[in-house]
Amino acid sequence: MRVFFYMIFKIHILGCGSALPTLQRNPTAQYINLQERHLLIDCGEGTQLQLRLNKIKFSKIDFVFISHLHGDHYLGLIGLLSSLHLLGRKKTLSIFGPKKLNEILKSHFEISGTFLSFKIDFHEINPNKSMLLFEDNIFKVTSIPLNHRIECTGFLIEEKGKLRSLKKDAIQKHKIPIEKFHQLKQGEDLVINETIIKNDLLTNPSPKPRSYAFCSDTKYEESIVPIIENVDLLYHEATFLENKRERAKKTFHSTAIDAAKIAKLSNAKKLLLGHYSARYNDLSEFEKEANSIFKNVIAVKDGDTFEIELINEE
Amino acid sequence: MRVFFYMIFKIHILGCGSALPTLQRNPTAQYINLQERHLLIDCGEGTQLQLRLNKIKFSKIDFVFISHLHGDHYLGLIGLLSSLHLLGRKKTLSIFGPKKLNEILKSHFEISGTFLSFKIDFHEINPNKSMLLFEDNIFKVTSIPLNHRIECTGFLIEEKGKLRSLKKDAIQKHKIPIEKFHQLKQGEDLVINETIIKNDLLTNPSPKPRSYAFCSDTKYEESIVPIIENVDLLYHEATFLENKRERAKKTFHSTAIDAAKIAKLSNAKKLLLGHYSARYNDLSEFEKEANSIFKNVIAVKDGDTFEIELINEE
Repeated sequence: MRVFFYMIFKIHILGCGSALPTLQRNPTAQYINLQERHLLIDCGEGTQLQLRLNKIKFSKIDFVFISHLHGDHYLGLIGLLSSLHLLGRKKTLSIFGPKKLNEILKSHFEISGTFLSFKIDFHEINPNKSMLLFEDNIFKVTSIPLNHRIECTGFLIEEKGKLRSLKKDAIQKHKIPIEKFHQLKQGEDLVINETIIKNDLLTNPSPKPRSYAFCSDTKYEESIVPIIENVDLLYHEATFLENKRERAKKTFHSTAIDAAKIAKLSNAKKLLLGHYSARYNDLSEFEKEANSIFKNVIAVKDGDTFEIELINEE
Repeated sequence: MRVFFYMIFKIHILGCGSALPTLQRNPTAQYINLQERHLLIDCGEGTQLQLRLNKIKFSKIDFVFISHLHGDHYLGLIGLLSSLHLLGRKKTLSIFGPKKLNEILKSHFEISGTFLSFKIDFHEINPNKSMLLFEDNIFKVTSIPLNHRIECTGFLIEEKGKLRSLKKDAIQKHKIPIEKFHQLKQGEDLVINETIIKNDLLTNPSPKPRSYAFCSDTKYEESIVPIIENVDLLYHEATFLENKRERAKKTFHSTAIDAAKIAKLSNAKKLLLGHYSARYNDLSEFEKEANSIFKNVIAVKDGDTFEIELINEE
């Protein structure tokens, strides 16, 4: 196994609490650096201060994804946009979220008499089906329809596949002409002077594309499994422990065991839990309960970071 | 001079920053305890956490006053109301603010599918003239029309006058009948058996009613002076130092010297400065500049508290 250190895919937990704020846990927000594409997922109240505390520059963020319009997932957004304006941002900012979010933003800036220094490229999310929301040459984002009290969407963030890389020494030894390079990078064998040269003599395997799924807020919902199958890292809300299973059901939230079941069914490599109710202090119970179903699980804390390692395909 | 310790009038500075948040200063919010009447003035993002840090129970607050609809003065309100709802509040909450604030609140709770557990008694403020906003037997609040980029109102909070208190020994000595007590408390002299008994032989003076004025955000505006005349404690914004006088003018804000001039003209007893631009770290410069005009001045910090002492009238 070869590990590539140079292509970052890192998730920063800015807030892992739920609606009632505590001094330990901020409401939901996550910042992702995927090969210098900078994404913010959800933006609860206080996200700006969490960005500052974690030494993340506001100006880096080019993509914002908002899952739904409960306050603990978006009330920090207007303040962040105002700050970007005050800091003189010129770059367009892409925001993906519920239709109503756009109305809320427009009305705030109208009332406060603010003409933003930058353009917002707003993309309305259809909450009813899984759709490709964005892609470029580095990554793509797909929506995950969740099952909450109001329309709510998770996000699957996938790295794009890379081409195989050339083994320089072997290329020189076999005197491979430049025009064959693209063929080689795509994995094809070569035929030169009626001799077959196997591709893996001339190239290194491409790294396996990595993926991260963000699923908050939702009750236990198996229909998301095919969308997030084989994901490297799954964040799934776990607002409650089993002792509050009825409350979870009533409020359209999950327990740690619900999250673990989804992780197992999806064949996720690792599970992160979060969005804990303010009533819980000891997070180890969340890991303990989830562990009965799924082994590789972490109950996240504000300020935690998680890197997804790049490994080769074979 | 007699000091009364039992009737609290205390101002807690929850946030003294301006629009761009810093790790040192939160956006504007102040909490006031006036003889167990509990008021919140402005509610910038993060006010809930500041209340928690300062160990102030959310549930105590019965009155919220919002000066204007720039984000750093109200973006924490929706989250606070949501928390009060989650905490099961039943008591009505009175909110005084711009008309549009009511629309913003209603639309948020409609979109998020929340039916609050308590009633909001919303009072629309007329931003164009000074008016009595509220009074009961303890205190009254008067609006102060300010001069900012958008409609903006300050608040004058005044304690109601108390009656004089009876000197028990003197009352017994002169055998004053009960039916004369009210007359005495109001300061009248008594005529008993054709003899005049001077009121101050029989009663102690009433404490002087105390007052606090909150003026943020505004440019230098002399028309507020008659409204806040002789105030015990004046909070006046000082977003800039003199080196940014032009910027202050352009953004409809004040400098420390502007604030000091208003304090002097109003014959305020003490001046508090706040709402500093994020560009300033050293607050002592604010006091220094203001001091050239007005002596009793403090540049406040988050977490500061100020008590207004109760003293007798004579």
